[in-house]
Amino acid sequence: MAAAVLRLRRLDGVERPAIATPVPAPGRVPIVLLDAGATVDCDPDWLVQWARLGAVLARVRHGVAAPRIGLLSNGEEATKGDALRKAVYPRLERIPGFVGNVEGNDLVGDRVDVVVTDGFTGNVALKSLEGAARAMVGVVKDCLFATPESRAAAEVILPAFLETYEEHDPESTGGALLAGVDGVCVISHGSSTARAIRQAVGVAERCASAGIVEQLKATLRDAG
Amino acid sequence: MAAAVLRLRRLDGVERPAIATPVPAPGRVPIVLLDAGATVDCDPDWLVQWARLGAVLARVRHGVAAPRIGLLSNGEEATKGDALRKAVYPRLERIPGFVGNVEGNDLVGDRVDVVVTDGFTGNVALKSLEGAARAMVGVVKDCLFATPESRAAAEVILPAFLETYEEHDPESTGGALLAGVDGVCVISHGSSTARAIRQAVGVAERCASAGIVEQLKATLRDAG
Repeated sequence: MAAAVLRLRRLDGVERPAIATPVPAPGRVPIVLLDAGATVDCDPDWLVQWARLGAVLARVRHGVAAPRIGLLSNGEEATKGDALRKAVYPRLERIPGFVGNVEGNDLVGDRVDVVVTDGFTGNVALKSLEGAARAMVGVVKDCLFATPESRAAAEVILPAFLETYEEHDPESTGGALLAGVDGVCVISHGSSTARAIRQAVGVAERCASAGIVEQLKATLRDAG
Repeated sequence: MAAAVLRLRRLDGVERPAIATPVPAPGRVPIVLLDAGATVDCDPDWLVQWARLGAVLARVRHGVAAPRIGLLSNGEEATKGDALRKAVYPRLERIPGFVGNVEGNDLVGDRVDVVVTDGFTGNVALKSLEGAARAMVGVVKDCLFATPESRAAAEVILPAFLETYEEHDPESTGGALLAGVDGVCVISHGSSTARAIRQAVGVAERCASAGIVEQLKATLRDAG
């Protein structure tokens, strides 16, 4: 990430980069979560910048015409949140598409298309989602392979499971974007397979073709 | 919660109460997550106090002989974390059972028995876990009821699913404890059914019979 910031440099109007991770949610395009771990101690202004970037990513990468933006908090009410959230909230109210505070479960729901938070909380939330999903897959597997009867039934059900799994597999979705640098930077896992890297290159190609950097710059320019 | 603090008063050596939520994890007793939302802006000392309380709860409520305690962070390395985590880490190192930083996925794993964090992060993590688990249940249901063949197979598999679900249902586990007050206080959902309330009363009875408050006091006294 340091290399990307040094080589590509930051966009004008962005003080820190953010990792924008697509979170797979059932029955809809992925939700853009940022920051998922680039910057842990945050100035309120940075979250406002990331909200603007996230909306562009939701629009250009995931095809959401008018992205709804939520601030990740410990309750939906405007009064909820710690000191950082209370400082950020009134600034976000000036941003088109801001719908207010959202909660951890909204990262897999249909209330918003972009969830903005500091990199510490974003990382904890993302790994909690991944952990719970993996634990549930384990429970399902145990149930499917428990007895000869369940194994026979599993053969009927597994194709549908695998299709859904494939749709939401990070190897299929192509990974996170580093938002706020002057270029397209896709972040893959250290353990990425050849297939995951091919998907990531595909995402980079599509983002570049769609002129995502120019759209980010235009949005930041309009925000003044 | 305010009523509980006013009526029961705080334990000596505890500056703020914490909500200690049992997080169901596959194949093991629940993990104690605290704080799950009582106190959002935290002094490092409070997290240290909660770590001690959490270890007593894991021992007395969940029967863990020597609870392992983790600090929820954005990576396992000791250098990970925001300013609060960096201030808390060296203080936690003096606590018996502290194993270091843990991540969101460890809330459903087997590395630790107690996870300590501020109430903001704890609340976001808990709701992320719940959201992902609920989304996965939805996906499983859709797969099971997709076709006449899958519905027939589902009849074979559902009993095992439901048994696992029942084990981990918050209505079965009896809810969170308010840690740090001089008494036993079980926190239930506003939407609790009669059955959930009966379980909660059972938890309160067992905690009181086991002398949990005396054990909390002894631990705080030993900590000086």
